[in-house]
Parts: sequence; structure tokens; C-alpha cells
Amino acid sequence: MSHERRLLILAEGASGDPHAGKTARGVLRYRPKEVVAILDSARAGERHGEIPIVASVADALGLDPTAALVGVAPAGGRLPPAWRQLVVDCIAAGLDVESGLHEFITEDAEFATLAAERGVDLRDLRKAPPGLNVPTGANLEHDATVVLTVGSDCAIGKMTVSLELDAAARRAGIASEFVPTGQTGIAIAGWGISVDAVVADFIAGAAERLVVEGVERGGELLWVEGQGSLLHPSYSGVTLGLIHGSAPHLYVLCHKGGATHIDDNPRFPIPPLSKLVDLHERISLLARPAKVAAIALNTASLDDAAAAAAIAAAEADTGLVADDPVRNGPDRLFAAIHAATPLGPPPP
Amino acid sequence: MSHERRLLILAEGASGDPHAGKTARGVLRYRPKEVVAILDSARAGERHGEIPIVASVADALGLDPTAALVGVAPAGGRLPPAWRQLVVDCIAAGLDVESGLHEFITEDAEFATLAAERGVDLRDLRKAPPGLNVPTGANLEHDATVVLTVGSDCAIGKMTVSLELDAAARRAGIASEFVPTGQTGIAIAGWGISVDAVVADFIAGAAERLVVEGVERGGELLWVEGQGSLLHPSYSGVTLGLIHGSAPHLYVLCHKGGATHIDDNPRFPIPPLSKLVDLHERISLLARPAKVAAIALNTASLDDAAAAAAIAAAEADTGLVADDPVRNGPDRLFAAIHAATPLGPPPP
Repeated sequence: MSHERRLLILAEGASGDPHAGKTARGVLRYRPKEVVAILDSARAGERHGEIPIVASVADALGLDPTAALVGVAPAGGRLPPAWRQLVVDCIAAGLDVESGLHEFITEDAEFATLAAERGVDLRDLRKAPPGLNVPTGANLEHDATVVLTVGSDCAIGKMTVSLELDAAARRAGIASEFVPTGQTGIAIAGWGISVDAVVADFIAGAAERLVVEGVERGGELLWVEGQGSLLHPSYSGVTLGLIHGSAPHLYVLCHKGGATHIDDNPRFPIPPLSKLVDLHERISLLARPAKVAAIALNTASLDDAAAAAAIAAAEADTGLVADDPVRNGPDRLFAAIHAATPLGPPPP
Repeated sequence: MSHERRLLILAEGASGDPHAGKTARGVLRYRPKEVVAILDSARAGERHGEIPIVASVADALGLDPTAALVGVAPAGGRLPPAWRQLVVDCIAAGLDVESGLHEFITEDAEFATLAAERGVDLRDLRKAPPGLNVPTGANLEHDATVVLTVGSDCAIGKMTVSLELDAAARRAGIASEFVPTGQTGIAIAGWGISVDAVVADFIAGAAERLVVEGVERGGELLWVEGQGSLLHPSYSGVTLGLIHGSAPHLYVLCHKGGATHIDDNPRFPIPPLSKLVDLHERISLLARPAKVAAIALNTASLDDAAAAAAIAAAEADTGLVADDPVRNGPDRLFAAIHAATPLGPPPP
């Protein structure tokens, strides 16, 4: 994917379902300048910020898109006929197609045949690349500083925290790279590996490969997108493989303010943040002991007073700087993390 | 696989390489009564214990095998022509074929076509079954007691410890099941899932499914074969997914006596056993806090005095019973673990 991609986001049906379209929303928030149109017939004629919403692929072509992104997972998993036709229309119009679906478009005979005829690329964001293996040790042999987001649960904003801190670092003039490890991060950044979709033996090897690529892209400070949680009953294996393979120098511990249980399940009470700090530090790669540098709180569900109280409580519990980088901006968190790197305190 | 299988072990070339044939050796040690012959032309005419060694598939047929096991991984990964012919001979002779190779025999067009014609089953021990998903909670809703082997490193005998403790429990009259999680365990027990070969998101779900199957097989005390190590730079993700998915009540911590570094790599010093005990207990599934019940030491590389000293040192460090279940028999370890279960001390 080049940085000159001009995206048509396929979001048909998204207006009826606020939970659909995590990938579309991520790209619209963090790469709006790459989006030339959104396809959602129910809202055709409206705009999302400055981006026009269109009713059909044909209506988007005047805006000169180079690629289409399947930005909404249609209910049920398999592509319904109307959605299949959208993908066919995009290929026929000469657009590359990127998809975060579990069902791979590259393994669909009709799509693959059409794409070959038309000379366009199909790309499954969740599909593991060939040639993965276990780590080689290259994760310990580069000069960049690696910061990994970890968390008390899934889906609480680890990717957002990494992206906000990357943006703060770039504003400070640092050669910073966001390192994507899941489909939405990949759709935003245009590269990466969905580490939850690789063969279990190769989680750490995939994470190492991503860090090496972040260095090759010029990153001196890498913000690796975290996945899952060490304490999550389903996804902890991915989390630990990502920790050991990315070999971070520092963690940012993410938590949803007010949350008391993983997945709201009464069987899985979230321990105090200070215990989570300790657990992550103890389980760091033996060859690279890592510290938690700061706490990132997601306070979206709290009012201003409750958010301030949650931030103060997290600081009192852990002795670390805590903040919500979306509500309050990332600069205070970024300064605390920068000060914990070998780089020392950031310039004022 | 039924319990009436009569195995021909394909071990061609194994006599020249002491490191080849882990799967063959495991089956010969733990299921010798199921093995009717070993194929290794360099040793044809000899015996392994009571089991005859033959030069060809034809020479084995008089012993009435029902299945062949590819018990040696030929160097290089891909099956060389002579090995392919052995597999073809087995299929042509009406034998089912089980394989622990990374290259799947079920996806080989020649083998698959021949097997369909002959009506025999091909089985890849490392191939993930269809329909895996994340855990459902069934790992918390059965009445069996689950004991998982964990360790300071890979390839130090976790499977052997689980098998020896299963045998001790059976001798004590307990409804005990060994739960296989890797290719050799699967070849020995005739069922199981190689959890390192599943999609990363489904490690815990695969482990849960195995525990449920162990209960369905009548197990009241389950010995789950451990994989990797929480501290291993390559395989820790598999280890933690297995811990959270199998949801053990107790751990047995395995360690190779005298080992100081993971994979003998100076970057990865093994912490004191007491720290490893603490780490495993802290990272247990939140819904089922688990304790380490005993330490299993592999003292194969030590003389008698050094082995006794290593066992004494492990006991002094951890305050737990430590022993080598191969050198000294499993009964002392088994008694300590049994006493830590809700069942209490075993009968004298």
C-alpha cells in the first residue's frame, strides 16, 4: 500500500448499526486525508466532515479513488449478495480492495479471477503473511526504543493510545512509527500483521518482524499496538507472545475508567492497577526487563468529575502518571513516557 | 483412533540420528503393546525389547498392523522420495497412516487419492481440527480436578511427567486421563490437539476443548500435557493460552536439574524456582487461582549425588515436594499432588 492511496470506504449499512465499522471509523479518524468518499446508500448526499457520502461505486469514481476498503463487517460473517456486488463493482472499476473480514477475499474464486483480469490487488488485512517463524533475536539488536500498550481488558482503546502517542511524538519532531498488530491498525497505517490470526507458534516471531519493519521504516521511537490482556481468558496467549516478540523497553498500561471486571463477567475481577503493573514487569522478556512508564485511562463513559477522580486514583495506586489522551490530549502522557526512555525528559 | 490399533512405526534412518524420532520413542515407551513392528532397514532383524524391526512394509504385514505412524521427521522438512514410497506402500497395504510432520499428508494429492481408493484414513497429528473458537466457560463447569505441567523451558520432560503421574494415579485406582496437547502426546494417547498449531486467537479455546474431552472420556483427575514456558522467548504465548484455557486447579513445575539458561542462551537466565512458582500462581485464570503443588526435576544429566542435591535444593527454595519421577518413580510426587487436591491425602 502506498501513501498515495485514495480510499473509497465501503460502509453500506453502517448507519443502522453503531457497533459495526470499527475499521471504517479508525481510518476516518486517523487517516481522513486518504479517504475520498464513503459508500452508504442510506446517507447518500450527506458528508462526514469534508468527505462526501455516495450511493454507489459509480458515483465515487469521479473522486478518483485508487482502492476500496471493506470497512464494515456485514452481520453473519459471510458476504451477502448485495455486498458481493459492491466488491465486484470496485474490482471492475479498477480499484484495489482491502478487507478486514474473517472470510478472505483473496480466497474467493470469483473475486480472484476478476482481479487478475483487471490487474488490481486484493488484500486481506487479517491474513498471515507467508514465511513466519519464531523470533531470531533481531528484536534485541536494533537501536530504536519500543513502547507497547498493554491493558486490563480487550477493546478499551490500546490502539487509540498508541496512535495518539505516535502523533504527539511526531509533533515533537521525533522519528516515530506506529506499529500495527490488528486489522484496524493495518487499515490505518497501510502495513502490519494481525498477530491474532497467525499460527500460535509464530506469535512472537510475527511481533519481532513488525518491530524490525518499524525500524526499517525509519522509526527511532516505536509505538506497538497492543492486543488482548495478560488476564483475558480468551486472548492472553496473543498478548504474551506480542510482549515477548516485540521486546518493548516500556509499557503503557491501558484501563477503562470505572471497569471492574473483564468483559463485564463477574468471574473475572480486574485486579488493582498496581498489581497489573507488577505482573507485566515480572513477565517481561528475560533479556529485556521492561517497566510500565504510565497509565492511559479511557474515561469516555465518565463525566468530568468522575474522570478526574479516576485519573487521580490511578496515580495514587501506581505512583505513575495517569491520563486520558483522548479527553485531555496526549502531551502529559507522552512527556512521562519520554522521560522514562533513555532519551530522558522531552524538551519543554 | 481406537484402542485396538496395531502400529507399524516408520523409523527409517532413526538409528543414525539420536535426536530424530521423539514421537517414535514416546510411543515405544508409553504404548509398547500397541506396536507390532518398527521399520528401519539399517537394523532389520534386530528387536527393540520384544518388538521386531523390519526392512520393509511388506515384511511387517504378517504381524497384522492396522496403522502406520510416521515416527521420524526426515531431515529437511519435506518427505524425500524413499520416504514417500514408504507412505505409499502403507496406504496400498490398507494401513491407516498417522503423521506428526509439519507438511500435512492429508493435503498431499497423491496420498489423498490413494487413501480414498484404498479406504484408509490419513491423520495429521499437528493439524488443527475445524470449528475451533474461544473458550465458552465449560473449562469452569466440570467436576474433574485438572493438573497442568508447566516449566522453566521447552523440551525438558513436561509430557513425561504428566504421563508418569497419570500412570501412578491409575495404579492408585483413580479415573485418570492424560490430556495430550502436542504431536507426541497425541500419537501416544490416540487423541488430542497440537495447541501450538492452531490460530493464535484459539489457543485457549483448543485447551478448553481438550479438558472437556478428557472429562467426557471419564477422567476425574486430568493430567494436561504442558507446552513451552511462560518465560520462553518464542513459545510463551502458547503456554499462557494453554494455562488459561485448561484452567488447572494445580500446576506441577518442571525443571531440568542443573539448567541455568533457557535454550542454553546466555541472554535468558532462568530465575530461581521460587520466583517461577510465584509467577505461575499470579498469572492463573482470575476465575480459578491455582497453586503449584510440586516440583518435577529432570535429573537425567546428573549423577546420583548431584541429582539428590538438586532435589534437595529445589525443596529448600520452594518449600514444596520435589522429585524426579523417572529416576525415582512418580509415587512421592503423586502423593504430594494428590494431597493438594480437594481429594486430600491419598490412601497409604
